[in-house]
Amino acid sequence: MLNKIVLTGAAGKLGGLLRAPLAALCRELVTTDLAPGLANLLPNETYVAADLSQLDQVMGVMEGADMVVHFGAIGDEAPWDAILQSNIVGAYTVWEAAYRQGVRRVVYASSIHAVGMHPKTDFIDTTARHRPDTYYGLSKCFAEDLASLYWDKRGIESVCMRIYSCEESVNNARALGTWLSHPDLIRLVTAAITTPTTGFSIVWGVSANDRVPVDNARASFLGYRPQDNAEVHAPRVLAQAAAMDPQNPEDMCHGGPFAVVPLGESGVAMIKARSVKA
Amino acid sequence: MLNKIVLTGAAGKLGGLLRAPLAALCRELVTTDLAPGLANLLPNETYVAADLSQLDQVMGVMEGADMVVHFGAIGDEAPWDAILQSNIVGAYTVWEAAYRQGVRRVVYASSIHAVGMHPKTDFIDTTARHRPDTYYGLSKCFAEDLASLYWDKRGIESVCMRIYSCEESVNNARALGTWLSHPDLIRLVTAAITTPTTGFSIVWGVSANDRVPVDNARASFLGYRPQDNAEVHAPRVLAQAAAMDPQNPEDMCHGGPFAVVPLGESGVAMIKARSVKA
Amino acid sequence: MLNKIVLTGAAGKLGGLLRAPLAALCRELVTTDLAPGLANLLPNETYVAADLSQLDQVMGVMEGADMVVHFGAIGDEAPWDAILQSNIVGAYTVWEAAYRQGVRRVVYASSIHAVGMHPKTDFIDTTARHRPDTYYGLSKCFAEDLASLYWDKRGIESVCMRIYSCEESVNNARALGTWLSHPDLIRLVTAAITTPTTGFSIVWGVSANDRVPVDNARASFLGYRPQDNAEVHAPRVLAQAAAMDPQNPEDMCHGGPFAVVPLGESGVAMIKARSVKA
Amino acid sequence: MLNKIVLTGAAGKLGGLLRAPLAALCRELVTTDLAPGLANLLPNETYVAADLSQLDQVMGVMEGADMVVHFGAIGDEAPWDAILQSNIVGAYTVWEAAYRQGVRRVVYASSIHAVGMHPKTDFIDTTARHRPDTYYGLSKCFAEDLASLYWDKRGIESVCMRIYSCEESVNNARALGTWLSHPDLIRLVTAAITTPTTGFSIVWGVSANDRVPVDNARASFLGYRPQDNAEVHAPRVLAQAAAMDPQNPEDMCHGGPFAVVPLGESGVAMIKARSVKA
Amino acid sequence: MLNKIVLTGAAGKLGGLLRAPLAALCRELVTTDLAPGLANLLPNETYVAADLSQLDQVMGVMEGADMVVHFGAIGDEAPWDAILQSNIVGAYTVWEAAYRQGVRRVVYASSIHAVGMHPKTDFIDTTARHRPDTYYGLSKCFAEDLASLYWDKRGIESVCMRIYSCEESVNNARALGTWLSHPDLIRLVTAAITTPTTGFSIVWGVSANDRVPVDNARASFLGYRPQDNAEVHAPRVLAQAAAMDPQNPEDMCHGGPFAVVPLGESGVAMIKARSVKA
Amino acid sequence: MLNKIVLTGAAGKLGGLLRAPLAALCRELVTTDLAPGLANLLPNETYVAADLSQLDQVMGVMEGADMVVHFGAIGDEAPWDAILQSNIVGAYTVWEAAYRQGVRRVVYASSIHAVGMHPKTDFIDTTARHRPDTYYGLSKCFAEDLASLYWDKRGIESVCMRIYSCEESVNNARALGTWLSHPDLIRLVTAAITTPTTGFSIVWGVSANDRVPVDNARASFLGYRPQDNAEVHAPRVLAQAAAMDPQNPEDMCHGGPFAVVPLGESGVAMIKARSVKA
Repeated sequence: MLNKIVLTGAAGKLGGLLRAPLAALCRELVTTDLAPGLANLLPNETYVAADLSQLDQVMGVMEGADMVVHFGAIGDEAPWDAILQSNIVGAYTVWEAAYRQGVRRVVYASSIHAVGMHPKTDFIDTTARHRPDTYYGLSKCFAEDLASLYWDKRGIESVCMRIYSCEESVNNARALGTWLSHPDLIRLVTAAITTPTTGFSIVWGVSANDRVPVDNARASFLGYRPQDNAEVHAPRVLAQAAAMDPQNPEDMCHGGPFAVVPLGESGVAMIKARSVKA
Repeated sequence: MLNKIVLTGAAGKLGGLLRAPLAALCRELVTTDLAPGLANLLPNETYVAADLSQLDQVMGVMEGADMVVHFGAIGDEAPWDAILQSNIVGAYTVWEAAYRQGVRRVVYASSIHAVGMHPKTDFIDTTARHRPDTYYGLSKCFAEDLASLYWDKRGIESVCMRIYSCEESVNNARALGTWLSHPDLIRLVTAAITTPTTGFSIVWGVSANDRVPVDNARASFLGYRPQDNAEVHAPRVLAQAAAMDPQNPEDMCHGGPFAVVPLGESGVAMIKARSVKA
Repeated sequence: MLNKIVLTGAAGKLGGLLRAPLAALCRELVTTDLAPGLANLLPNETYVAADLSQLDQVMGVMEGADMVVHFGAIGDEAPWDAILQSNIVGAYTVWEAAYRQGVRRVVYASSIHAVGMHPKTDFIDTTARHRPDTYYGLSKCFAEDLASLYWDKRGIESVCMRIYSCEESVNNARALGTWLSHPDLIRLVTAAITTPTTGFSIVWGVSANDRVPVDNARASFLGYRPQDNAEVHAPRVLAQAAAMDPQNPEDMCHGGPFAVVPLGESGVAMIKARSVKA
Repeated sequence: MLNKIVLTGAAGKLGGLLRAPLAALCRELVTTDLAPGLANLLPNETYVAADLSQLDQVMGVMEGADMVVHFGAIGDEAPWDAILQSNIVGAYTVWEAAYRQGVRRVVYASSIHAVGMHPKTDFIDTTARHRPDTYYGLSKCFAEDLASLYWDKRGIESVCMRIYSCEESVNNARALGTWLSHPDLIRLVTAAITTPTTGFSIVWGVSANDRVPVDNARASFLGYRPQDNAEVHAPRVLAQAAAMDPQNPEDMCHGGPFAVVPLGESGVAMIKARSVKA
Repeated sequence: MLNKIVLTGAAGKLGGLLRAPLAALCRELVTTDLAPGLANLLPNETYVAADLSQLDQVMGVMEGADMVVHFGAIGDEAPWDAILQSNIVGAYTVWEAAYRQGVRRVVYASSIHAVGMHPKTDFIDTTARHRPDTYYGLSKCFAEDLASLYWDKRGIESVCMRIYSCEESVNNARALGTWLSHPDLIRLVTAAITTPTTGFSIVWGVSANDRVPVDNARASFLGYRPQDNAEVHAPRVLAQAAAMDPQNPEDMCHGGPFAVVPLGESGVAMIKARSVKA
Repeated sequence: MLNKIVLTGAAGKLGGLLRAPLAALCRELVTTDLAPGLANLLPNETYVAADLSQLDQVMGVMEGADMVVHFGAIGDEAPWDAILQSNIVGAYTVWEAAYRQGVRRVVYASSIHAVGMHPKTDFIDTTARHRPDTYYGLSKCFAEDLASLYWDKRGIESVCMRIYSCEESVNNARALGTWLSHPDLIRLVTAAITTPTTGFSIVWGVSANDRVPVDNARASFLGYRPQDNAEVHAPRVLAQAAAMDPQNPEDMCHGGPFAVVPLGESGVAMIKARSVKA
């Protein structure tokens, strides 16, 4: 059992799911986000409001931690300046503070959008080259390369989890391949925490879907074994899905709607529109 | 649900298995073959006799179709002239008519014999180079390359299913690795039809056999998940199997007896002889 | 020195270049084409008019030959029926007659258009998958697979030379990468003839151009070492070249204009138009 | 059913586990080891004491055998001279006697230590280059290359099983990935015996562990399907595991403690010390 | 001939070398840097002082340009904040302004330090994964991924030149492999400008050194053919070189001294110290 | 300049060629072999008779050496017992003595016969798997794996030079691809000595032949650039060469006659017979 884990982005959708599972893996869980406070703190949980783009604030949060689970960033496409501060500078401060405070490992919420322009008919493994689809995806590429640097030069371990579509349920045809269920997210983060050594690693954050378009074999040693399968939702989802167009990057690329969304503008609206198109 | 699917080779052994499952996936199923008629038509099924080597006949059948499932061809080694007409010219007419009629996708019964000369100790994936074992296999190579051409130049999608040993049961040692059960054939064709976008794809048509010698990972996005396993037949089959010879291509190559059958002559007799050799 | 070599397509542009060099490699050179006769026969050259789509005619020509150099086919995109007879049936008859007459090796004029839809920013080697750009290219794919079959099943060797732009000089920007000079063509065919064993081999037919976009390393044992370089023509050619469009397959794919020419229609006119576009 | 199988190393820990399963696969099982005798012989089992470094002794044991299962060797790091006699000369005599006596196949207990210096964050398949971690591992590399030679030159088949941590239970964190259960060992040897043709093959000897760090896909045709999973022991084992150090080859390499043990000295003591370190 | 080229970093060491060659490739050369002015302007050269981290300033410079040659950035390891502003924000503004102003291509001074932590005994090609050795190298990774994004989403071409050791002469043993002569730099930039289509490309900026440790084959279509060879300096350089240590990343990694320099501190002093160590 | 180099096999054909070049690279050259003495010692050369299978004798020779150039072994196929003592035990003693005496690097005469069973139509690089053709080749595999072990565990560098056909001239058709001229041998050994760091490296020992069937790119950093080309001998050699048979391993495999010579018997006689077969 670890002494202390830090969770960034604890007030976010995914971060919120991780508080209890992480609290069970350590003596002290420190959660942090921009919000002033967090409801329903767990017995061994402490919340500290912090701006991740400010190194001094992050330094304070990290003190004495064994590992940091870094989910604190903008989670959708956004204007460049916002991505720069939140996701690029924010990544730097997290790894730098981790180094200065002797934190051993960063478990990082990377994203499929780091490689979203690859066609989904190309079954890719974790060595596929960076091919971002948005500023958001570009910031994930940056953080992965930063993680590589801190491992090679400073011995800080990182597990970069390229999370696909982490939703409560499956709501569009693309998600039949890309869904990451909430329980599988928890399994993934748990594996990333408990694996004895990880070095610099990349792993796809995706459930055991029949239509999964990526290969997690190279991360096998992490022991992440998803148990949910989007296919149980296939009849409902396909019945209402719009026809797809193989010439359209939205329908052909791993990044889905992010592959066509204009840079700097949100892909969320497009995803929503898409789901009800039929 | 699709409006119209065309099934060629509907009077054949495998084609016959597909009539009911395909009828369930569309409003109108048009079946075709050389035979004058077909017994036991399904409520939404229409049968049209046609010679696939005649473009005008194929044009008529394809009108208004969304997809065509192309099983109409000689299914064994045969003299060159027969293969040329039936399998090479026949493939051209199917893809060309599909293009002219606005058909979106061809689901094609390709074959392991397109790559049958690879040794089975070489675990091959769907990118292994063409290495046909017969004129029959050569015609499958041709059709796959044709499919690639129609996708790159004209945007017609294709799923080339390299079917192995599709039999009701497992009758020889080779089939412990190569068996495709009838239910798994139906699963495969269903996946090839229902996957939203496929581009030009190749997938192995083989069940979930313990001894499967090919890698289907690159076709993962199609969601084909076989459920049968030839291994349940292993005790019976191995008890009566002849000793094998690792220096004999029949016993060492993916193509099995096709790897040694003289070009232009039937491999079927050899397969049958083999099964009872012990 | 070989006893007898057969050259098909001897009346064609490239075939004509090969008569003298081949005559120097054997005691008897038999040249053949559709034309009734050939002017200026060399001392050890015999000409026989023959239709390569007729097996019996080809059988006569091949009798007693050691090797056949097969250049007799349509050399541009053409309607399907023409390609079928000339390039597909014609390839079958050549390899089949070679087998029946005990010919040891087929040296074959394949083409870059067998793989013309690959982007030229992808440096490809001789194992790149077939990706034809035209019916013409498709027929080259067919013949290569046929050559593989005759090697694996019958021990006939083949050298498939994927000839690029074999012209007297360099006349457009694409050719700065793709040019095969006439002297280098002769070097290539000579290497394919004189190499002691070749099995089934593929080699790019391209000069030592600075901008060569393909990798011939896997054919290194053939000893083909081109000596010409299109770059000496770069100043002239680039000065008059039209601006290119990276989104246009014509400008981005290995196949050049063949990557955009409509199937069944000649690409030659387009190439000519292109050269003077500026 | 085979006529005769020979099992070397029958008095050893793993060899002992194989006597009954092998006896069920043949009419006559001949077991051999250095010990003068073996207790509890099975009805169709004959024991012959033999020194595997003496060719004449091995020749006698092999007479009339169909296959030999070769487990007779030092199973831990040892001084060079001991490894040389037992594992290198011993391998030569086994393959040479197999050849002289017409034995068809050698099923060989190779080891993960043939490739133990690869980092375990590198998911390796059976084509990973030799990278031994000890003299012991070096002797396994030697025997694998010897097996390749006897297949290529003399047609003797071999299945080189790279056994990981074959123990009754899971006793340290490394074994969560590397465990080979006793029942899975028996499944593996049975597959290696009963597969009709194997040529020269390599297969990982590891259970179906969640954290398995190697890829057995290329040996798929052998039909080895492990059924045990070390993960059921994870809570107990991780609770008492020492913290690991990603900079330490012991914790980072496939070979585990063998990756740091001094050459020529036993790694067993280090493994034991490690297990109780927490 | 292009209408207008923009050169950033024109007051720098390498930028200065490029002014005349670029001026010869276009009607109008606009040079820019932080300095207030530039001496010895060429007849068709205009200098505009600009801060590349300010989008509006860059927008003005880019107006009407066909291509931009981007050398304007910190060229050594530096503190994070400096790298962030100059190399990361500066890259964003250059590509964004290029997009907004309709510039077709960015020719970018990337660096070997984007992959500097690979061992030099690993011969790497342009697909080797990012493995930066410094914040400087990390910023080059960022810009390459940005270039990939602008190509995939917006059709802006980029040639990322991973420049090695661009010096007037060869002054240390490492440079025997890594030297890029000044004339070869000019050849490289000229090729990157004049190649008709480039898409998103990566090319090593290194001379034709005997000891070159990287593979430029995949960039072959660019036609960059270096003509200088550091080996002529080998006798002098090796005579005064310090002994190297294969366990030291400085001596074993592509990045050389950057592989050991502390993050954020200059590697230049270390390189100089190294050169005279013997 | 190195202080002391040891050369084993100094009385052999190749060893003799290396005495003068090595003497020029160090202050003291110690040569050794089984012979009692060596004629014409160079000024800085000392000869010590030693049996390489005796560790104590090797220890004496190695004292104080910086590097050892290890050519002392049987250089042809021979009976197993002879290969075992001379080439396997002899390799162990050389690396072990090197370790104990603080020698930094072993430059080793490995051989193409470590991979001789690969077909020569497969262009192989230095990562091709071991595929020995003889006991001789097997001993080279062993020494390479030993070299890998001593590098990974003990930091001893090795350059394994896989020497092809090192002869004064080119005497048979195979050698057109495989020749290593004497001057190129010296260039190769010099590069292996003078490269600052090598780790564990493999390099093909072959001249710059037009028909070279192996890829030395991965050893590029060593700076070995051969200057001779067997092709100048092609007219003479091919004129007298026997016809080759592509089904014969002797004519189709990298190992040439070693690919067919019976194990344990000399391949030299076969090579000689072959050269005059025509």
